[in-house]
Amino acid sequence: MANVPAVRNERSRQAILDASISLIDEFGYDKLSIEAIARRACVGKQTIYRWWPSVGAVVLEAATQSLDPVVTFPDTGDFFADMRSQLVGIVKLITTTGFGAAYRGVMAAGQSDSGLLEAVYREVIEQNVTAFRARASVARERGEIRADTDVATLRDILYGVIEYRLLHGMSLEAAYIDALLAVAFDGAR
Amino acid sequence: MANVPAVRNERSRQAILDASISLIDEFGYDKLSIEAIARRACVGKQTIYRWWPSVGAVVLEAATQSLDPVVTFPDTGDFFADMRSQLVGIVKLITTTGFGAAYRGVMAAGQSDSGLLEAVYREVIEQNVTAFRARASVARERGEIRADTDVATLRDILYGVIEYRLLHGMSLEAAYIDALLAVAFDGAR
Repeated sequence: MANVPAVRNERSRQAILDASISLIDEFGYDKLSIEAIARRACVGKQTIYRWWPSVGAVVLEAATQSLDPVVTFPDTGDFFADMRSQLVGIVKLITTTGFGAAYRGVMAAGQSDSGLLEAVYREVIEQNVTAFRARASVARERGEIRADTDVATLRDILYGVIEYRLLHGMSLEAAYIDALLAVAFDGAR
Repeated sequence: MANVPAVRNERSRQAILDASISLIDEFGYDKLSIEAIARRACVGKQTIYRWWPSVGAVVLEAATQSLDPVVTFPDTGDFFADMRSQLVGIVKLITTTGFGAAYRGVMAAGQSDSGLLEAVYREVIEQNVTAFRARASVARERGEIRADTDVATLRDILYGVIEYRLLHGMSLEAAYIDALLAVAFDGAR
């Protein structure tokens, strides 16, 4: 056995994360295994098992490397316009990087792995909830949204519907974000 | 080999569907197999393979047996109140029957089986889209929702967010439906 250090080696870590994303792109999440990731990243399987408990955990970390678009909220003074920029950024992240396929795989695995689902909440959703709440709070103080708006539910709607469409393989584009914001901000009646 | 008729035997069919739901309840979707369903339903594996292409297809048919709450839209003359009844009915279906666990399993399998995902669209979502559009159209004529409301997006919001919370294992209750309807109908600003 090679003498592998207990502390994560940054180059190996990055090779493992990159390998998992490229393998998903090429073969799909369901074909992914620790063995395949190890081979592609040129590391031993034990190196992966030492740092991550499961394939899902590797992929979750790979997916959350590029979470900036999910957690960064611009503040130009116009909440509606800023939300549009932020949501279009997420759609771009989903449709132009490995994030979409990786997130779909993690959510699939999470349906029978509650620990993984909790990690998704902690690593992805909770970050977004916190940042959204702060940005919405400023918007409320400025009178851009009503004082009685349920901010948690507004967030569920904006991000939940994007995830719903992602998991169903439905199209996601900027025009859809406009339709979504129109209902969420102006209501149906 | 037993001489199995090509036409579906209704009693066997029901036994197979019931077996798949009870096995998911007991052991989880990821432990489900054609073999386990066959054993529980007291039928041969070939009987199942003759009628369904995969475990996911069996479970989708089991889940969609009780779709009445998803596709039946009351019309008491009050669209908002009727939507509340309909959505509370879906939450009840999810939380008190095997539908929730079965749907989660099918969506998990669908992330690496595009045929199954298309079947979910055809058997579940499209039915709901059609029935919702008809009910919303009456509401629009009566002036209960604005003429410029994007009805397809309104539907995505109401059902997509429920599915989002289901797949993340988040709580679903009638009070949440009230918060959801408040944003969707009255908007955040």
